[in-house]
Amino acid sequence: MTPAAAVEAVRCSDATLTVRRADGSPCADTEVLVEQVRHDFAFGNIGFDFVGLAGEERAEAPADVFGGAGREAAGQLVDLWLDVFNTATLPFYWAGFEPVEGEPDTRRLQAAAAWFRDRGVTVKGHPLVWHTLAPDWLTGYSDAEVEEIVRWRVRREVTSFTGLVDVWDAINEVVIMPVFANEERPNAIIRLCRRIGRLPTIRLAFEEARRANPGTTLVLNDFNLSTAYECLIEGVLEAGVQVDAIGLQSHMHQGYWGEERTQEVLDRFARYGLPLHWTETTLVSGDLMPPEIVDLNDHQVDAWPSTPEGEERQADDIVRHYRTLLAHPAVQAVTYWGITDRGAWLGAPAGLVRADGSPKPAYDALRGLVKDEWWLAPTRLPTDADGRVAVRGWAGDYTVTAGDGMASWRLRPDAPTPEVILA
Amino acid sequence: MTPAAAVEAVRCSDATLTVRRADGSPCADTEVLVEQVRHDFAFGNIGFDFVGLAGEERAEAPADVFGGAGREAAGQLVDLWLDVFNTATLPFYWAGFEPVEGEPDTRRLQAAAAWFRDRGVTVKGHPLVWHTLAPDWLTGYSDAEVEEIVRWRVRREVTSFTGLVDVWDAINEVVIMPVFANEERPNAIIRLCRRIGRLPTIRLAFEEARRANPGTTLVLNDFNLSTAYECLIEGVLEAGVQVDAIGLQSHMHQGYWGEERTQEVLDRFARYGLPLHWTETTLVSGDLMPPEIVDLNDHQVDAWPSTPEGEERQADDIVRHYRTLLAHPAVQAVTYWGITDRGAWLGAPAGLVRADGSPKPAYDALRGLVKDEWWLAPTRLPTDADGRVAVRGWAGDYTVTAGDGMASWRLRPDAPTPEVILA
Repeated sequence: MTPAAAVEAVRCSDATLTVRRADGSPCADTEVLVEQVRHDFAFGNIGFDFVGLAGEERAEAPADVFGGAGREAAGQLVDLWLDVFNTATLPFYWAGFEPVEGEPDTRRLQAAAAWFRDRGVTVKGHPLVWHTLAPDWLTGYSDAEVEEIVRWRVRREVTSFTGLVDVWDAINEVVIMPVFANEERPNAIIRLCRRIGRLPTIRLAFEEARRANPGTTLVLNDFNLSTAYECLIEGVLEAGVQVDAIGLQSHMHQGYWGEERTQEVLDRFARYGLPLHWTETTLVSGDLMPPEIVDLNDHQVDAWPSTPEGEERQADDIVRHYRTLLAHPAVQAVTYWGITDRGAWLGAPAGLVRADGSPKPAYDALRGLVKDEWWLAPTRLPTDADGRVAVRGWAGDYTVTAGDGMASWRLRPDAPTPEVILA
Repeated sequence: MTPAAAVEAVRCSDATLTVRRADGSPCADTEVLVEQVRHDFAFGNIGFDFVGLAGEERAEAPADVFGGAGREAAGQLVDLWLDVFNTATLPFYWAGFEPVEGEPDTRRLQAAAAWFRDRGVTVKGHPLVWHTLAPDWLTGYSDAEVEEIVRWRVRREVTSFTGLVDVWDAINEVVIMPVFANEERPNAIIRLCRRIGRLPTIRLAFEEARRANPGTTLVLNDFNLSTAYECLIEGVLEAGVQVDAIGLQSHMHQGYWGEERTQEVLDRFARYGLPLHWTETTLVSGDLMPPEIVDLNDHQVDAWPSTPEGEERQADDIVRHYRTLLAHPAVQAVTYWGITDRGAWLGAPAGLVRADGSPKPAYDALRGLVKDEWWLAPTRLPTDADGRVAVRGWAGDYTVTAGDGMASWRLRPDAPTPEVILA
């Protein structure tokens, strides 16, 4: 089976839609127009660049450690972003979100989340607990106090954003958390995790978030995809912590992993029967980072340009990577980490759009997958005498139109016989 | 502090011994002779080489996958072994212990364990559960049946050896267990662990062993000393499995790790407040294995000779390694993996004795630590008017002699005021 066929076998399903008129009678023997509106599959990207734009801020946004294109550039990016992605990750890095204790950036992020929601985009918050970018003011507290403050922060964010942000990276990079040695300053979260252990730290994040919003989707997220993460996950599940999805980062600044390694990772982590979220995917369109770098943050270069050869490679890589991921039934979400090279993490040419605002080949390639190869083009189909029409398509939101009447419906493999009334 | 002083600071303690005569009166103002008989600290080595000798077998012992010197050679090794070591690891590799289902090698191993016990040696069994060297006959059973058979095997061994073997590696190398790919044949234990998960596999080993002998000491043992093992341990402890000691292998066929790395491992694993057992320590006295080898089993050479330079290096390494380990208060046991080069794992010159039976410099160096530097030489001391005498020494068993009278006593940091009656 070709990679493209493998994706279709996993992601496409058949439905028999029954179309009725406003009076309830079957819309029989009629040509109807079926159009896909949205993917169920979460095609994600960071929405950091649009926080200032969404808030209609006049000044440039405060500097964000993980980039952000600035307001003017963001305006040019909006349509490109919204044409491909349906899920936005917003930044809740604690040091940036609450630089002064007691003054969280809640309203600004609420405005950004609402802006995305109003455009049909699901918003995910990243992350509730992480050692990196813990606020400096936290270091003065004792371990017991830090634990209480972390619990409070988790409850506060989840509560303040219920209805706007209902998917969270509950905790980030726990494998390394108590042994991380690349922090210049004393870090209260590392200290706490070392004291109480990884599992109690995970439990506090998940339990507080769940309590604040029982309907939220909570992700355990890590970049360490070695056996260590498996061991951690098995401990978490054995301890009875309810994890909704396993988050797998895939920053590939050192080069695309290839199908075989990706498949091996998929198989190892699908073993737990939980949805897999590929949370942070990066493929650069310039020189690759040298393989001897272990912590990507250690690679600092003056300039890291996008090159024509690199852009072709990136486009090829992104198609191979997304095909491999979507061909695996456990994968529920893929979040690309950056729309533009402007302000990208490490200065890497990781965006799908160049710093000048023009789309790279990788943008077109990914759009080709999401909105063409994996998208049901508007299709005219005849209903039968009972108003039924067979549709084969990708899980998602659809419309059906007949004359002046229109209705929305969802195509899902677990609900193959939807029924609509035209209005 | 020098390494030697660091060991003394951790391992030496002061006791005030009160010596009484048979009638209960103080043995006052008398010169007594204090002699150390045994270390509390477990200086271990494998006892594989002596199984045939202990059973007074006429034929050569069945081939053991992890070496074994054969009976004749073993006879020459006995005194060298017993002069340094007080703890023997005996082989319970399932494929060798029960090559035909229902015909375990119980009596032969009981004889070997009794032989050691009669010589004052503590015996440890290795291992109860391990994927490597699972018997071929196990592969025909279903996962549910394999689990029942493994439980039965654990109960049987622990029960049959209670009083002879009360320390066990309950389970070996779980970090890699469900993902181990270096097995030529289908392996029922890997299959089971992949199905039920690492923690349930660990739990079954510990729970069955504990139930069979509540007084046994159960070790979780691994060669993978990365963060993965930390994550596994934290899951095991969180799941409430009672682990008595954390086992850390240190096969250093690729060269001595050095003090810094060893210290880092010690600190990371001491964090759990459990005793640390260095379970499988190897330092070669020949060429080092190339660093690119990941699974040591992949290194197969026709001949791997011991060399004069290698022997000097091994002697130096062993002193540095043991000093580093004994200077850490969490370490309770160190087991060197091999007395002789004869039949050593991988053919490596890892023994402390050459194939011809002569001790290497490493043997003399280790004996010098165990029986000289860390040993209270026979010492004459005067008692006071109340029969008291101050002794500073290493935790262990001692005698005190005055004239014809003698008594045994123990020097322990947690019981600094022993009292004896001469008999």
